[in-house]
Amino acid sequence: MSKKTKIAVPSVPFDEPAHRLFAAGADFRLADVDPTAKPGYLGDKKTGAVDLAGVGAALGDLQERFFAASRAGAPHKILLVLQGMDTSGKGGIVRHVVGTVDPQGVSHHAFKAPTAAEAKRDFLWRIARQLPKSGYIGVFDRSHYEDVLIHKVRELSPAEEIERRYGAINDFEQNLADKNTTIIKVMLHISKDEQRARLSERLEREDKHWKFNPGDIDERAYWDDYMGAYEAAIQRTDTAAAPWFVVPADRKWYARLAVATLLREALEAIDPQWPAADFDVDEQRRRLAAS
Amino acid sequence: MSKKTKIAVPSVPFDEPAHRLFAAGADFRLADVDPTAKPGYLGDKKTGAVDLAGVGAALGDLQERFFAASRAGAPHKILLVLQGMDTSGKGGIVRHVVGTVDPQGVSHHAFKAPTAAEAKRDFLWRIARQLPKSGYIGVFDRSHYEDVLIHKVRELSPAEEIERRYGAINDFEQNLADKNTTIIKVMLHISKDEQRARLSERLEREDKHWKFNPGDIDERAYWDDYMGAYEAAIQRTDTAAAPWFVVPADRKWYARLAVATLLREALEAIDPQWPAADFDVDEQRRRLAAS
Repeated sequence: MSKKTKIAVPSVPFDEPAHRLFAAGADFRLADVDPTAKPGYLGDKKTGAVDLAGVGAALGDLQERFFAASRAGAPHKILLVLQGMDTSGKGGIVRHVVGTVDPQGVSHHAFKAPTAAEAKRDFLWRIARQLPKSGYIGVFDRSHYEDVLIHKVRELSPAEEIERRYGAINDFEQNLADKNTTIIKVMLHISKDEQRARLSERLEREDKHWKFNPGDIDERAYWDDYMGAYEAAIQRTDTAAAPWFVVPADRKWYARLAVATLLREALEAIDPQWPAADFDVDEQRRRLAAS
Repeated sequence: MSKKTKIAVPSVPFDEPAHRLFAAGADFRLADVDPTAKPGYLGDKKTGAVDLAGVGAALGDLQERFFAASRAGAPHKILLVLQGMDTSGKGGIVRHVVGTVDPQGVSHHAFKAPTAAEAKRDFLWRIARQLPKSGYIGVFDRSHYEDVLIHKVRELSPAEEIERRYGAINDFEQNLADKNTTIIKVMLHISKDEQRARLSERLEREDKHWKFNPGDIDERAYWDDYMGAYEAAIQRTDTAAAPWFVVPADRKWYARLAVATLLREALEAIDPQWPAADFDVDEQRRRLAAS
């Protein structure tokens, strides 16, 4: 027994690599993405669960190797940025996708409205404090993008400051990429009708009341503005260093499979290797036998 | 559909509650715990996996409620402290037990040898910085107990300082308990022979080399001293506020089932409740329908 057997799961459950299938790309228009669709996938919810388990097992294996490599000095980090309207399923991605890997190698942060102390600083200050270390998968549930989304829609910052921020974000992310961070920015794209159904479920179920906030209904009046702000942000910050992926998310199972596969492809591209022994195996065998 | 169906798993797969079965208790003697045994459990590895899945599902449900309650102001925290000799399975507990709950509600920290900056401070300083917030399960992979274990065995601190630390730890933990932290301290107890087998596996498998450190073999020469240091630490710091549980760990599946059950019992004792709606459900239904 020399090496762990590699898990034999086809690399992609979709008909092309997820990082191409979901790429925002040049001339991105949000209206071209149908939140109710399941592009590139022939299966259904049932096969989706099976495929997610397969991708999850592969992810677990890759993540362990990624973490191990970092202990021997590999500098890579992964940053998964999750954005989407309320109820779009960010929490479900954390639970069902990120939850398939060892908690030891994950650093998760949910960004809420800035505190008074945070609001006094540049908007990227609190972001920079939560970046993943080498070998870690960092997960941002909301992020610095709120500062060009809700800030634009609700006019919390002047238009010229929003403009400045697009550039500041690109510089910031380029710098992270230069320092070996693979950045995966995901917009979970739901329809306004699906949001109504999900908010309704939160109202009908006592175990979901804690997730409901009357303010979420207020924001629905600005739906089109939010879509415009997402489109603008994606157009302005979709870079080679930090690409955007727009995932149809009206079907939760489909969105989870998509994000799991994006994460898997990112790890496969890094191709982490088990570190070589920095000791003489035979010598240690003898020492162990004598101990 | 008003409430989520409760998962019908018997509360305890053992023949008595885990917090009694594994309690160190008065007049604790480590020699009374057989690392190869599986006290209180009639099943085997196969049923153990089934039982762990059941306890894991219950844990996931309880943890979500625990997290939800904290959002509405419930002050409780859980701190799981994992201690044990090298290869005792601390990492496996994190992966297979802590990994059953939502990563969103976990804060994990692995304590290594203190940095130069940490070593200049009191030994509890770096510990206090990693404590879980309300609604979180904090997991310490090693902890402040290293400062009375390896420090005692390898004489890294004078005997009177070790003595002082027992008291300082008890005060520190009492204070945490007074502030609504449920503390679960676990010693994963393996035999010296089992450690040899596990170190040997790390030597034979390339995908385990990164976990092997020649220094681990050096420490085996001090095995009896370590057992003495564990026994002393447990005797001196097993308090009502922060009890010790000593879990036979030569069988990994058994130790995982034990710790999962300890965690489950702690959550059941807190008995977190879904927060009541702080809004008028009918009013919000109308607003949502009109949105």
